[in-house]
Amino acid sequence: MELDLQLYSVRTDLAVEAKEMAERHSNAPIPGVNEEVEEADGIKVTRLSVADPAGSQAIGRAIGNYVTLEVPALRGGDTGLQQKVSIVFAREFEQFLVKIGIGRDSKVLIVGLGNWNVTPDSLGPLVVENALITRQFYELMPDQISPGYRNVSAIAPGVLGLTGVESSEVVQGIVDRTRPDVIIAIDALASRSLERINTTIQIADIGIHPGSGIGNKRRGLTKEVLGVPCIAIGVPTVCYASTIVNNVLEMMSRHFGQMADGGAHTKEIMGLLDDISEHERLALVKEVLEPLGHDLIVTPKEIDEFIEDIANIVASGLNAALHEAVDPGNVGAYTH
Amino acid sequence: MELDLQLYSVRTDLAVEAKEMAERHSNAPIPGVNEEVEEADGIKVTRLSVADPAGSQAIGRAIGNYVTLEVPALRGGDTGLQQKVSIVFAREFEQFLVKIGIGRDSKVLIVGLGNWNVTPDSLGPLVVENALITRQFYELMPDQISPGYRNVSAIAPGVLGLTGVESSEVVQGIVDRTRPDVIIAIDALASRSLERINTTIQIADIGIHPGSGIGNKRRGLTKEVLGVPCIAIGVPTVCYASTIVNNVLEMMSRHFGQMADGGAHTKEIMGLLDDISEHERLALVKEVLEPLGHDLIVTPKEIDEFIEDIANIVASGLNAALHEAVDPGNVGAYTH
Amino acid sequence: MELDLQLYSVRTDLAVEAKEMAERHSNAPIPGVNEEVEEADGIKVTRLSVADPAGSQAIGRAIGNYVTLEVPALRGGDTGLQQKVSIVFAREFEQFLVKIGIGRDSKVLIVGLGNWNVTPDSLGPLVVENALITRQFYELMPDQISPGYRNVSAIAPGVLGLTGVESSEVVQGIVDRTRPDVIIAIDALASRSLERINTTIQIADIGIHPGSGIGNKRRGLTKEVLGVPCIAIGVPTVCYASTIVNNVLEMMSRHFGQMADGGAHTKEIMGLLDDISEHERLALVKEVLEPLGHDLIVTPKEIDEFIEDIANIVASGLNAALHEAVDPGNVGAYTH
Amino acid sequence: MELDLQLYSVRTDLAVEAKEMAERHSNAPIPGVNEEVEEADGIKVTRLSVADPAGSQAIGRAIGNYVTLEVPALRGGDTGLQQKVSIVFAREFEQFLVKIGIGRDSKVLIVGLGNWNVTPDSLGPLVVENALITRQFYELMPDQISPGYRNVSAIAPGVLGLTGVESSEVVQGIVDRTRPDVIIAIDALASRSLERINTTIQIADIGIHPGSGIGNKRRGLTKEVLGVPCIAIGVPTVCYASTIVNNVLEMMSRHFGQMADGGAHTKEIMGLLDDISEHERLALVKEVLEPLGHDLIVTPKEIDEFIEDIANIVASGLNAALHEAVDPGNVGAYTH
Repeated sequence: MELDLQLYSVRTDLAVEAKEMAERHSNAPIPGVNEEVEEADGIKVTRLSVADPAGSQAIGRAIGNYVTLEVPALRGGDTGLQQKVSIVFAREFEQFLVKIGIGRDSKVLIVGLGNWNVTPDSLGPLVVENALITRQFYELMPDQISPGYRNVSAIAPGVLGLTGVESSEVVQGIVDRTRPDVIIAIDALASRSLERINTTIQIADIGIHPGSGIGNKRRGLTKEVLGVPCIAIGVPTVCYASTIVNNVLEMMSRHFGQMADGGAHTKEIMGLLDDISEHERLALVKEVLEPLGHDLIVTPKEIDEFIEDIANIVASGLNAALHEAVDPGNVGAYTH
Repeated sequence: MELDLQLYSVRTDLAVEAKEMAERHSNAPIPGVNEEVEEADGIKVTRLSVADPAGSQAIGRAIGNYVTLEVPALRGGDTGLQQKVSIVFAREFEQFLVKIGIGRDSKVLIVGLGNWNVTPDSLGPLVVENALITRQFYELMPDQISPGYRNVSAIAPGVLGLTGVESSEVVQGIVDRTRPDVIIAIDALASRSLERINTTIQIADIGIHPGSGIGNKRRGLTKEVLGVPCIAIGVPTVCYASTIVNNVLEMMSRHFGQMADGGAHTKEIMGLLDDISEHERLALVKEVLEPLGHDLIVTPKEIDEFIEDIANIVASGLNAALHEAVDPGNVGAYTH
Repeated sequence: MELDLQLYSVRTDLAVEAKEMAERHSNAPIPGVNEEVEEADGIKVTRLSVADPAGSQAIGRAIGNYVTLEVPALRGGDTGLQQKVSIVFAREFEQFLVKIGIGRDSKVLIVGLGNWNVTPDSLGPLVVENALITRQFYELMPDQISPGYRNVSAIAPGVLGLTGVESSEVVQGIVDRTRPDVIIAIDALASRSLERINTTIQIADIGIHPGSGIGNKRRGLTKEVLGVPCIAIGVPTVCYASTIVNNVLEMMSRHFGQMADGGAHTKEIMGLLDDISEHERLALVKEVLEPLGHDLIVTPKEIDEFIEDIANIVASGLNAALHEAVDPGNVGAYTH
Repeated sequence: MELDLQLYSVRTDLAVEAKEMAERHSNAPIPGVNEEVEEADGIKVTRLSVADPAGSQAIGRAIGNYVTLEVPALRGGDTGLQQKVSIVFAREFEQFLVKIGIGRDSKVLIVGLGNWNVTPDSLGPLVVENALITRQFYELMPDQISPGYRNVSAIAPGVLGLTGVESSEVVQGIVDRTRPDVIIAIDALASRSLERINTTIQIADIGIHPGSGIGNKRRGLTKEVLGVPCIAIGVPTVCYASTIVNNVLEMMSRHFGQMADGGAHTKEIMGLLDDISEHERLALVKEVLEPLGHDLIVTPKEIDEFIEDIANIVASGLNAALHEAVDPGNVGAYTH
């Protein structure tokens, strides 16, 4: 039973998941990857930096900075919690800009990737709809702008199947003409676990790489390509059926291992499914599902509401982080 | 490891799935359940009748008639196939009306159950939007109606959480006042296998029972309750994460069993997961998932398009079946 | 030139407009109609009561109480003003309930009239979507409800053309089964002046009468019909092309009359169009427009945003007025 | 009473209206403007060419070719007529391409101007959604494309207020990168008469000029700006309140003029409103309306349905005209 282990690393777009998988695989901390975790009010913030090529290779992620907010309770639909997350996101995003050297007066282009007709893929366009856009005032009446605002423009470039043009080409065309100092690209992601869907937000300074996200980009949005830095904000909104199965087998293994008998029966119950590595198990599941065309990408039933809520959180947080004049406690007023 | 086996039978709303599970469980045909299968052009039609209490108990379905259309290729989005399915559906539905004794002049009330804000639950309201409604003409200008039409009204009663009123109460109120001869209730269902989602349509003369469908009805829509017969049309649009996992384990078991070694290694690989009954396995999976709140209900990523397509198929088919004047080859003209 | 003067009185659904027209026509105050006007923060509140049959006939409105909020600046889209209007609406609606004898514990059914597919007619359904619904908790877990809430249910019955059933029949069916103490019916109205569109809210205790509102109801929603009192909340969202023209001619007449020459040239410029009564002028305009099919019903270009804003104002105000526990300053949290 | 006559010429985006107004003003045919009219099945086709600067100045339109389809009955919502219009549009558009020298293999970029959140301004984005896009196949698998197709891409660039970027800048960026041979820009227009709204389609080879259409573009989309020819397709979806009033006064004048008395009383009834020129009358109406902020832009109440229908007509027609393999009789299959 030969397996292409590399193939499956793409099944997650989250650095924290990739690191977790790598650690479990090697049973050791990963050199070249630094992590700082903070938790308050049910919001877990992980600041992870991939410092060198070794770390990058070990977890299959580009060198760079990654901040992840994990808020399992977001699924509950509590508007109070949503506002708190939005405020924490704004604070983290502001610090992130400082850390990577983006100044207060830098001009921002927000790019909402994804397909507005496919609910779990519509995060980017939804954030763009709710972003506070000001560039037109800087162009038309620069001397009448109150202090505390920043030059922000935004575009939802659509997807290749709808426009016939790669979203990266659309963005490059606009960058060439409007010369922003930094790109903030919003994208829906795939996760390897159901529970991260719509409860996790990742900020990274590595841009968008080909093949990442839901929409299978063929070209990236990176500093190399665009000539300006690109910050990616991603939220997992889907996962593969195969990763759900794999996830459950893993939970089972842990479940039996924690029983009174110290896991004595785990092997009896689960056979090799317990023994083999995560990568092999996932490959096995896929071997069974794919020929039947059953390795569907799925999303929670409540996706319509989830995606609207998380888009509001991200847009509100961005508005507060980008414009000093926007009060983080009142960010909701600027979104629909 | 004690399991409540009965609990899990509700995880499917499809009679064909229930029968399949029962057969696999008992390894024998089910007495009191008759089946007739026909297949053409990639459309499989199963006409199943549950004839007596024994059959009913064996498969956990009410006594009555069930017609199921299974069209795996529907997932491909081919508009030609969609039209074919719509025509077959119209034909089957017409025959179904004849079989259960609903006459050509009977007045119909179409009830679109479900929540229009939750995409996989919006099948009913979408069909109502595209149904050809005529009752107002029978009320206001009965002598000006061309032959070939029937008195049809329709309502989407919403869900308890949106209205504060059980959908069955709304329907009963309208039935009391408008006195239809038959109810046709459209509802989104849960399936136990991902591949049936949006590719299967079930017609049944048993009405809607409490707890069935996605929306957890608390009261039913049945002849006993409403005083008029109720035909249910259902399409599975979601499934539980636990049933996906169970499904895959089952596929695995079959997969290894069909290998060159005659399944000699199946037990080694899968342990007891191969051996135990389907009910036990499902219970096991749920035991692991539920405490973590991870037994989510999921739907394919492309649900927006799927649900629109299948709603059009059902509405077009209904329009052709209910109104003789509507040409089954041109039914699309009456829907959006 | 014979004109059916009566015909045109239906062109407004607003009591304040009807009274204004009647006063202008008779050049005198109307007996039997009492008015109280209050204005603050750009919000004009008119509390009008039609006390006797003479008053009723004079302005063509039923005997009853009418409260009107006029806020011309609402058109500007200022979210701060919207919140203020919502708070004033909540206060006025609470006082209105007290005045007409609706108690704190009375059970409420909110009815959102209109067609959700026609933007200017979708006010009712939109308010229903954003209303705080509680009846299900009173039915299922009455002893767990916190103080400060009231039993509220809601329905959007659709329109005759979509359902084949009169909306009044749907409502009556639900009233028969759920026995509310009072109905609150929300409806989009026609105004005779463009500037009142989306800037005026009328509350009245006279219910909904046949032919009123946009949707041309054929039966009413009144205490006589339903057996419970019915409060109507209406917002003008459309007007007839003919009333716009008439309106402008009237403005012209006033415009020239206020010129330095004391209106010496008004007659020369406007001919009989200045001289004839409003009713005659409107009839004249319609005589020209109707044969050509040009007396369209129009709505402002920005109707999508206007209708969403005003629906939020009404829903927020209702939520605060109906549930003591809902803070009028924070009502927005309960709407989308 | 001084009036800025030039100001009002912008109130129509239709060449046929501009010509009509100019002719009425000068009471003579306009030199330098050639017209060819054809009418069949209730569809009036006017092929107008503005041949020289004199003609251009006389009607206030750029030198170029204009084809207009007028179909008053479109308002009725008859799907059969809609399909006929779509076929005629396809034929006219094909001939138009030939006439202005656009070859069969030329690469096309469709630009859907306008704001998708404002229904009457959403024509462009809606046409883009329904256009048959092929460029991605030419980029990714050029040797697998069946004959009869053309390289087509499409973009809806949004509006300045939503993106902070002029739509022309977005388009120029894409043109720079994808090098199409011709641009087809779709835009919603303003008309001076209510009856033309949603019943008229204009094709012109003059591109999009600043200030035209609903969205007040500040920069144009013309061959001069983009370096490639730009064909504009426009449909009037709104008009100003002032032009409605003016329109009605004009109808009145004609109405009384056709009476048995030969119009003897027209002046008595209408005063100078009959006598003065159209330009002066419009200026007068605006003088009254504008200070009050009442010169609203309005659209018919049924705009949601109208815009969807006309977008389907244009998209279907375009698909058939651009791709030989698309059958004009079956164009509907490619749109939603």
